[in-house]
Amino acid sequence: MNKNSSNIMALAPNTSNKRETVCIFGTGDFGRALGHKMIQSGYPVVYGSRSTQISNLIPKDAEVLGHAEAAQKAAVIIIAIQRQHYNFLTPLAEVLRGKVLVDISNNLKLNQYPESNAEHLAQLLPGSKVVKAFNTVSAWALQSGTLDASRQVFVCGDDVEAKQMVMNIVRALGLTPVDKGSLLAAQEIENYPLQLFPMWKFPMFLSLGLTAFFFFYCLALDVIYTYIYEKNNFSFFIAITIPNRVCPVMALILLALVYLPGIFAAIIQLYRGTKYRRFPDWLDKWMLCRKQLGLIALAFASLHAVFTLVTPMRAFVSWRTSKGIISQVLNNKTEPLNNTNAWLSDSYLALGILGYFLFVLLGITSLPSVSNNVNWREFRFVQSKLGYLALILCTAHTLVYGGKWFLSPSAYKWYLPNIYMLSLVVPCAVLVIKFVLIFPCIDKPLTQIRQGWERNPKHSH
Amino acid sequence: MNKNSSNIMALAPNTSNKRETVCIFGTGDFGRALGHKMIQSGYPVVYGSRSTQISNLIPKDAEVLGHAEAAQKAAVIIIAIQRQHYNFLTPLAEVLRGKVLVDISNNLKLNQYPESNAEHLAQLLPGSKVVKAFNTVSAWALQSGTLDASRQVFVCGDDVEAKQMVMNIVRALGLTPVDKGSLLAAQEIENYPLQLFPMWKFPMFLSLGLTAFFFFYCLALDVIYTYIYEKNNFSFFIAITIPNRVCPVMALILLALVYLPGIFAAIIQLYRGTKYRRFPDWLDKWMLCRKQLGLIALAFASLHAVFTLVTPMRAFVSWRTSKGIISQVLNNKTEPLNNTNAWLSDSYLALGILGYFLFVLLGITSLPSVSNNVNWREFRFVQSKLGYLALILCTAHTLVYGGKWFLSPSAYKWYLPNIYMLSLVVPCAVLVIKFVLIFPCIDKPLTQIRQGWERNPKHSH
Amino acid sequence: MNKNSSNIMALAPNTSNKRETVCIFGTGDFGRALGHKMIQSGYPVVYGSRSTQISNLIPKDAEVLGHAEAAQKAAVIIIAIQRQHYNFLTPLAEVLRGKVLVDISNNLKLNQYPESNAEHLAQLLPGSKVVKAFNTVSAWALQSGTLDASRQVFVCGDDVEAKQMVMNIVRALGLTPVDKGSLLAAQEIENYPLQLFPMWKFPMFLSLGLTAFFFFYCLALDVIYTYIYEKNNFSFFIAITIPNRVCPVMALILLALVYLPGIFAAIIQLYRGTKYRRFPDWLDKWMLCRKQLGLIALAFASLHAVFTLVTPMRAFVSWRTSKGIISQVLNNKTEPLNNTNAWLSDSYLALGILGYFLFVLLGITSLPSVSNNVNWREFRFVQSKLGYLALILCTAHTLVYGGKWFLSPSAYKWYLPNIYMLSLVVPCAVLVIKFVLIFPCIDKPLTQIRQGWERNPKHSH
Repeated sequence: MNKNSSNIMALAPNTSNKRETVCIFGTGDFGRALGHKMIQSGYPVVYGSRSTQISNLIPKDAEVLGHAEAAQKAAVIIIAIQRQHYNFLTPLAEVLRGKVLVDISNNLKLNQYPESNAEHLAQLLPGSKVVKAFNTVSAWALQSGTLDASRQVFVCGDDVEAKQMVMNIVRALGLTPVDKGSLLAAQEIENYPLQLFPMWKFPMFLSLGLTAFFFFYCLALDVIYTYIYEKNNFSFFIAITIPNRVCPVMALILLALVYLPGIFAAIIQLYRGTKYRRFPDWLDKWMLCRKQLGLIALAFASLHAVFTLVTPMRAFVSWRTSKGIISQVLNNKTEPLNNTNAWLSDSYLALGILGYFLFVLLGITSLPSVSNNVNWREFRFVQSKLGYLALILCTAHTLVYGGKWFLSPSAYKWYLPNIYMLSLVVPCAVLVIKFVLIFPCIDKPLTQIRQGWERNPKHSH
Repeated sequence: MNKNSSNIMALAPNTSNKRETVCIFGTGDFGRALGHKMIQSGYPVVYGSRSTQISNLIPKDAEVLGHAEAAQKAAVIIIAIQRQHYNFLTPLAEVLRGKVLVDISNNLKLNQYPESNAEHLAQLLPGSKVVKAFNTVSAWALQSGTLDASRQVFVCGDDVEAKQMVMNIVRALGLTPVDKGSLLAAQEIENYPLQLFPMWKFPMFLSLGLTAFFFFYCLALDVIYTYIYEKNNFSFFIAITIPNRVCPVMALILLALVYLPGIFAAIIQLYRGTKYRRFPDWLDKWMLCRKQLGLIALAFASLHAVFTLVTPMRAFVSWRTSKGIISQVLNNKTEPLNNTNAWLSDSYLALGILGYFLFVLLGITSLPSVSNNVNWREFRFVQSKLGYLALILCTAHTLVYGGKWFLSPSAYKWYLPNIYMLSLVVPCAVLVIKFVLIFPCIDKPLTQIRQGWERNPKHSH
Repeated sequence: MNKNSSNIMALAPNTSNKRETVCIFGTGDFGRALGHKMIQSGYPVVYGSRSTQISNLIPKDAEVLGHAEAAQKAAVIIIAIQRQHYNFLTPLAEVLRGKVLVDISNNLKLNQYPESNAEHLAQLLPGSKVVKAFNTVSAWALQSGTLDASRQVFVCGDDVEAKQMVMNIVRALGLTPVDKGSLLAAQEIENYPLQLFPMWKFPMFLSLGLTAFFFFYCLALDVIYTYIYEKNNFSFFIAITIPNRVCPVMALILLALVYLPGIFAAIIQLYRGTKYRRFPDWLDKWMLCRKQLGLIALAFASLHAVFTLVTPMRAFVSWRTSKGIISQVLNNKTEPLNNTNAWLSDSYLALGILGYFLFVLLGITSLPSVSNNVNWREFRFVQSKLGYLALILCTAHTLVYGGKWFLSPSAYKWYLPNIYMLSLVVPCAVLVIKFVLIFPCIDKPLTQIRQGWERNPKHSH
């Protein structure tokens, strides 16, 4: 959906010579890739290298000089060497005085050094203006010109003008600079490219674990039990029937788990009588991954919706339908419309549709570009009012659908409760406690606490 | 979908001591919450307070001093007191000269004062550099660290350096500063957190009203009429059948209402012979909420799609299907395939699917992050060409589906027209007038007018 | 979903008189529209015009003076005249010295002049500070106040302060300035509004061509062949049956075409032994439109999903179902459940659902606001790991569904292969080659090459 003009620019580069020379220290992979791209964008490039003999690896339009000579030719010097070798720059301190040094280094693990590479460089060369940039871009992406991924380049530095110069280079390469403030932000910027969905890890493992549990639970009760006691081979239930039992259960439980930490927080605040004490660590972490839990719940709900809609197309279902009709014909009696059944079937479908609709709405408002256009009051309205409404509708959907199982003894195969009953425990608990919390006698002190009031001010420290 | 590195930072705060001291005037809830967060992010914090005795409410790592002393310790002073008490700052004018004052106040209602709080502060203390910031962030969100909502902090001020200093603090707290220009923007920034979907109000009320009307209309004709005259209890129609009649009607009418104001505007411009006169107020307001009308129409269309797909799963429908088959069997005749029926059923389904597909495409391009990547020419192409195509397809879908009702007398229960016919009035009118407007003899003067030409220049004022 | 406070501002304009006078040279359509909007936003506006007699076209609150006089009244002068007439500004050079000139001009075609209009203006008037802005906004949108489209205004210029002044004006008009760096970016900014989805052209034409081919292929085999040899009139297949055959085929082929260029690139790199040589042009272009190909594939997959879900509602399908049941009844035999059939039907549905689910996930991560929140490592994980998984699942879905056709002679009408078989050629080829490429003996040298290693360094130039 995104049409990107820079791509075209890459194919028809503006080879204007008005750009100022840029110096690159280091002829490693990233130094070369960046040099190629800069030459394409019209920058004269000078490499600073130990061996000034022309290497074949270096882009052919670039000059190669000794470090000191190269540095003298440019106002901006890109330091494409590893942190361990920064020490060799100290003898060059005089040449580099007043120059803009761009630290593009990355580490191999999070918080590898006590201070960031860029800050380390700034300490080694206090006379230079160090700017952190380009470390979030991959050499491969620069090389191939296919920057499908984020075009954002995080830039930070203490000198505003130096930062502006680097941001101009970033823009000229067809990338989008994002000002991250002073050099103190360098640590965060260096950690950024090493992350692999950090906020998603716990929610993902939790859902995988629960999914596996419920899958085997269903497998045991629906396939193995049936095979042993009723001699029916329903192994094909593995493809659709069982996933379509596990998905709604997961969606409902995860949605309830989104609202559970808020309830814990309220109880803790009520008990402590203050909001000025930190929550336990587990609760903090849980609250931070609510959005991810909600999105995974939405994924399960979507799968449930599609699995359900696909039902009439299944060979098993059409076989069962014809069997039912044929048996009616052979018994020569037409069953009248069962009004209660019609009500139950229509209302659980309608509840499910409305719940899912609200759920999707919540998902859309969690898109970064949408939530940025929503103020705090609106966000609270959507996420808490509409969120609880979605939870109520989905729980009601499950209750209406699975209600009949509670009393039927056939639902307790091997004395185990049906999966529907298990799925209702958490959401019902959340809804009941929430219902208690909105009673005025409890809601009033809670609101006061959240506005800064404290029951025992002297205990707050 | 959004992985947020700042969350992790919040858990492992960078308690570096390199940050400069920040002073906070006022120990109210927001002042304390901001102080807590700043200390977590490595800022030394000094509170300026009337009573310098250590209050238990203040974060324990913060210092508490008199206002003058506290102000001397910092270059940036956050004014966490209410507008009514700003006057007490005038005696401190000398101490505050040259300092950056951050106005974080909010009002209780829109445009409460003739000038914004920040401008008022700047007038009281002309020697200080006033910056508006942080008023869009909630104390509760700062406190709990769970900034799921927008991380944007609107910043405005007349002094560029002062603004830069405040924006650096904003970034250090893990938030995203958004530069809103000079202090004149303060009024807008102060109004922002008080809004609750202002652009959605009219479209929402309109759709609620229309929905209620059509719901009771259907209830009367489909349930009550049937119960009275045919003695059939179809009360369960309330759950799915009636919503699935109301939703498509609402979607079609609202989609047509998106394009109706454009047609009014064209007619008014043709009549007046100029584009340089303001439209009547109601038309201006209507044009401003077209996007919201379109999105609500999309929501109704989506509900209609799901309600329809769910049909084969309804107990009522499977009962009706078996009844039909059984009656064929008992009468011992197999009905041949009715080719006209097959054509009608397939073509209204196909028209609906394609119309809905274009509709969803329009919805996706209205996502802020997508529409920002689209230029004016592309936007016009999508919204006007594809939009009208969607309207044509959806109208055709309704015509093919409901066409048979026009001639059937059974569609006029209680002499009232069927809901399908009502739904077609607005879209057909829009399409017919639009068709007239694209005739060259009308399109040519309209295009000229829109390019700035005027029929009677002297009347334009 | 986007609630926009500026819209409200437009209705209740802040008519503060604190803003500084802006001068506009030229009284053409855009000059007048901009003047209207600026007056609404509280700016005093002076027009510079050849004829200083009051024109009725000009907003009534604006002053009209000669060019020199008007320019003296303001620090910012908007040049709303065409590039061909820039020469008349040279005599005014002295008056315009030190002023901020805002070039808002557009060209009629891409790269019309060797240098951008703004650079041309800067060369003519070297003493003035030229800023490029506002050319991406339409006069009609400014006039009508309905800026539903992008509110972004690209701004570039060599003087930072001049750029800040213009960006403040942009913000005051309720638009969002985007800093594009130095004046060198003007060419790109001037080309921007002339584009009409440039990256989408090739993918769109490719898909239209392929769709037409497959449509007529199906029409011939499914409708015409049946009509000629079986005397059955299945012309209504045109509405749903044939589109639902073409859509999945297109989705699968286009998805495979997303991954094919990556495979070509790997083979070329392995063959050349270096990554430091440009790919052939066609491959470069192909790689640049992979995202668009993928999104079109997703659109076809979505249509396929809806067309499939709608199946049970078709008159033809319900007729076929009843016929099947009635023939069972009349033959007085009930068919038992065919376990193999149940497995096949359930597993191709499940494979399709999971493949589509991953496909939608890929689509969501390609939304600009989501991909901006994802680092390179995460993007690679999603797009390459999950992307290949989606391709595998979709290919398996097709194989399980269409597998039976390979051996059946009835699938070879007119000796032509069935459309399913054609659709499998490209995806299977991609998967097989990809499978070969991940063998360690091939993967290892490829990884080395991509890290910058070269087999024959001397050949790289």
